[in-house]
Amino acid sequence: MTPAKKYLFTPGPVSVPPEVLLEMAQPIIHHRTPAFSAALDQARERLKPLFGTRQEPILLASSGTGAMEAAVINLLSPGDQAVFVNGGKFGERWGKILAAFGMTGHEIKVEWGKAVRPEQIEDALRAHPTSKAVLVQASETSTCAIHPIAAIGEVARRRGVMLIVDGITSVGVFEQKMDEWGVDAFITGSQKALMLPPGLGIVVLSERAVDTAMKNKNPKFYFDLLKELKSQRDEHTTAFTPTVALILGLNKSMELLHAETLPRVYDRHRIMAEATREAGLALGLKLIAPDNPAPGVTGLIVGDGYDTGKLVKYMRDVLGVAVQGGQDQMKGKLVRIGHMGYLTPFDMLIAMSALEAGLKTLGYEFRPGAGVAAVQSRIARSI
Amino acid sequence: MTPAKKYLFTPGPVSVPPEVLLEMAQPIIHHRTPAFSAALDQARERLKPLFGTRQEPILLASSGTGAMEAAVINLLSPGDQAVFVNGGKFGERWGKILAAFGMTGHEIKVEWGKAVRPEQIEDALRAHPTSKAVLVQASETSTCAIHPIAAIGEVARRRGVMLIVDGITSVGVFEQKMDEWGVDAFITGSQKALMLPPGLGIVVLSERAVDTAMKNKNPKFYFDLLKELKSQRDEHTTAFTPTVALILGLNKSMELLHAETLPRVYDRHRIMAEATREAGLALGLKLIAPDNPAPGVTGLIVGDGYDTGKLVKYMRDVLGVAVQGGQDQMKGKLVRIGHMGYLTPFDMLIAMSALEAGLKTLGYEFRPGAGVAAVQSRIARSI
Repeated sequence: MTPAKKYLFTPGPVSVPPEVLLEMAQPIIHHRTPAFSAALDQARERLKPLFGTRQEPILLASSGTGAMEAAVINLLSPGDQAVFVNGGKFGERWGKILAAFGMTGHEIKVEWGKAVRPEQIEDALRAHPTSKAVLVQASETSTCAIHPIAAIGEVARRRGVMLIVDGITSVGVFEQKMDEWGVDAFITGSQKALMLPPGLGIVVLSERAVDTAMKNKNPKFYFDLLKELKSQRDEHTTAFTPTVALILGLNKSMELLHAETLPRVYDRHRIMAEATREAGLALGLKLIAPDNPAPGVTGLIVGDGYDTGKLVKYMRDVLGVAVQGGQDQMKGKLVRIGHMGYLTPFDMLIAMSALEAGLKTLGYEFRPGAGVAAVQSRIARSI
Repeated sequence: MTPAKKYLFTPGPVSVPPEVLLEMAQPIIHHRTPAFSAALDQARERLKPLFGTRQEPILLASSGTGAMEAAVINLLSPGDQAVFVNGGKFGERWGKILAAFGMTGHEIKVEWGKAVRPEQIEDALRAHPTSKAVLVQASETSTCAIHPIAAIGEVARRRGVMLIVDGITSVGVFEQKMDEWGVDAFITGSQKALMLPPGLGIVVLSERAVDTAMKNKNPKFYFDLLKELKSQRDEHTTAFTPTVALILGLNKSMELLHAETLPRVYDRHRIMAEATREAGLALGLKLIAPDNPAPGVTGLIVGDGYDTGKLVKYMRDVLGVAVQGGQDQMKGKLVRIGHMGYLTPFDMLIAMSALEAGLKTLGYEFRPGAGVAAVQSRIARSI
């Protein structure tokens, strides 16, 4: 069985709505035209409520990692100290970026699947009082767990340090309040809740961050955020050639999300995540992050002796259903099912049905249909 | 008149073939899969003849400027000296990138529309004997002129310095011989002859450049070319999330170009450029680069008292035909007609017809139909 129709449940890249694909497949327009400027302005305006900000989104032709690097090199300088939360693969990346640019990162190591506690941030800042920033993920994609950004923001404010947040799997997934929480740099990428292909990175800076960036002396050119901000805000275009199709697609995907209304979008993700957790438990699987699960992606642990690498491969190659395994220390142990992109709770029926078929090939014992039934039950309660 | 059908004759971004748009509009696939790896490998292999190299193309999720920066920061270090050719807006950009990263650029200023002479390179390297590299455009898009890379390569080899070439409007446009010419870093972008939307930067490094990059101490992360090279060559994937749709589109556009055969692709560009130059002269316009015209874009000067800004706006807004004006010192004076992307010499009939209509609104006097007739005549000689 090699089905022509494929299903994508990976936690990014995600399925893109046909309306957005068609928008991106329009004859390409030039990027120094009123038509492009109008789309850029509108897309940037439409992004603000997803971040919970009145500040200006800065669009970059880069992946999310590029946007993370941009935030770091515009706000910190070589020799600077910073505290970062390493609760998974992407938290670890903060440390690598800081080190690459000659900054000293003080790591708060958090067990995979757990949330950092605000007291840990407070303690780290006390131990390293010259630290200029805290770097953290709002949602750590590798562990399917969220960190408490509002509470971390309070600590950062009290200690007078900047707060740099990777919102790659939180912005557009659940409600974010950048301005209220006091986030100074908030980052996301196109290939998650924004329902687009990868290639577009987004950074929003607080007013304080803009002031800090003005004084920053790090060498930079492509990722000069103030140059981009000025260009996008004042000149209605980008400093360098933009990802034209992605920006037109972004404007369309934002139109779709706002038409659905953001509260309903967030409900949709939450219900998918709840349905998947309930289904996983019904199959006897364990949740990697039971106390602080991410609404954008659910991580299920199958248990010793069952290789989720094989499971994922079988689901993808034989069933045409793409989910993702674990990374690094969770390799072979975890299966991750994404809820972002062009998906509804009904799609989780398919994900779970395929997961059950995959588990069967591993010899894992469970009550057939229990996962699908749990999804169905959660859907029923939401209608 | 506001026509629904638009024509794009800008020197990038360019028209994308429907086959490529459809390929990019396919349901998105995940980037850690055998299917993506196969497309990446094939696309990278298919790129090599366009550069004239046996080395490995490195694909970046960035615009061409990002790829220029990547070449500089991987091959040069702060404090290094280099010679760069400023014969237009993009040559000037080399200087800005060098300065941004604490390198000293020795500028060879070249009149817009002229080619740099190899003796000028030789003289500059003699005057600045500690220079480590020469940076130049193979084709300077802002002035529609080409520089003699083969001869510059000879000078660079004799003086033992690296040669870094921006091939953004040369790779895929006319024959390039990276290995034979001794180019150490050859750069291009997706939005020109590769017939794709913007967002994908490409760098090819010589063996010597790879050795140099290994010793380079510049801070880098997103643009770490050796990390990308290793990932793409050995692991058949990218280090960070790639521009999936663009890479699938690249593989398709490469398939189309190779099916056409590269000699015919280069002929097609050359004939379009010749037709446009002959048409411009037939209308009494002047060529900005009569001695060394680029095959990818033709620049025509209308003359004092005629604002090409108005001309371009009229052509675009009223006729639906997009060409481009001049930049910086040529603003208002130049009109640029691109020959790259999904175009054939027949399309130049449309470009010229619209140009004639635009010139008429400016009150410019010419024999109506002379431009179109010249294109038609050139086409006839090519059939």
